[in-house]
Amino acid sequence: MRTRLTGFVGGRSGTWRVVVNRAVCGDPLSEVTHLEIQDDAAASPPPSAAWVLRGITSNERYVTRAEKTELAQKQPSLGRSNATCAALIPIKKSAAWWGLTQDERRRIFEDQSMHIRTGMLFLPAVARRLHHCRDLSPTEPFDFLTWFEYAPEHAPAFEDLTLRLRASPEWEFVEREVDLRLVGCAAPP
Amino acid sequence: MRTRLTGFVGGRSGTWRVVVNRAVCGDPLSEVTHLEIQDDAAASPPPSAAWVLRGITSNERYVTRAEKTELAQKQPSLGRSNATCAALIPIKKSAAWWGLTQDERRRIFEDQSMHIRTGMLFLPAVARRLHHCRDLSPTEPFDFLTWFEYAPEHAPAFEDLTLRLRASPEWEFVEREVDLRLVGCAAPP
Repeated sequence: MRTRLTGFVGGRSGTWRVVVNRAVCGDPLSEVTHLEIQDDAAASPPPSAAWVLRGITSNERYVTRAEKTELAQKQPSLGRSNATCAALIPIKKSAAWWGLTQDERRRIFEDQSMHIRTGMLFLPAVARRLHHCRDLSPTEPFDFLTWFEYAPEHAPAFEDLTLRLRASPEWEFVEREVDLRLVGCAAPP
Repeated sequence: MRTRLTGFVGGRSGTWRVVVNRAVCGDPLSEVTHLEIQDDAAASPPPSAAWVLRGITSNERYVTRAEKTELAQKQPSLGRSNATCAALIPIKKSAAWWGLTQDERRRIFEDQSMHIRTGMLFLPAVARRLHHCRDLSPTEPFDFLTWFEYAPEHAPAFEDLTLRLRASPEWEFVEREVDLRLVGCAAPP
């Protein structure tokens, strides 16, 4: 059963095979060959787990009603049979970011960085789910875990998306970022 | 040592004596005589605990920079020696609230309900700290725990504050609320 709390378990087994594990900035995550997704993170992780990242789905923080309506019309669901490529991108933002007020963060996030507008350009090719970590405990290693799924033919488009976001003013507040790329184990070689 | 995570422990001992424990709406909390505040909620609660409510301090969700600056100038710190009265008000909001977008929530919270503006009227009499619960786990009993401290002569003003907020459009989204009033155990009888 799916609860709001999801666990991403890195280890020696899992339904996704890790093909890239790169620290974009800050500390890396230790090397693993596979990733398993636990829809109920309260369950105990498999014994082979090297690390577990936990995140909780929550209410919208930045989108307006007009943006939410447009996203709902365009965004695909996870689990499409042709979406055999995936990415897990854990991010931690700086104390300076969290010291900003909501209006200041929205201004950087969208007015200056076009985070929502840019993501929209890649719909319906790239499916996405955001998991929040910052308020799970005072000691979480990341603030957000974003999970993406796309078909192999859209891998270049996904590169384009990550490059655009990393070049935006919002990313000046990112102090740790890891980029994990994965392929479904049931996918053809 | 204080972390972002605080535990409010109801039981038979503690530095605050419970004088009112009233369910404003939804399920009550069981009767206790005392409340202890654990600045590190990872510590184990005392054996006499009847319940523990946990909350985490987090980034601002609604105030603008101008409002934050005004609040910072006016709001007192917790722990004033004359502030021997306290209140703990746990609140849970409805799914309808959490389905709103940020702009819609801000409009109800401040434009319609004047939550920030009303709180400002009672500064510096009433000190306040907000603890978030909703994203600690998928099964938290409340979304927020707000802690207030004030001197006995400001008790009528505090009643006025709670009445104004409960009459606001924002409160139509509150589906559970408990109102605990306390006096410091070191306070004169």
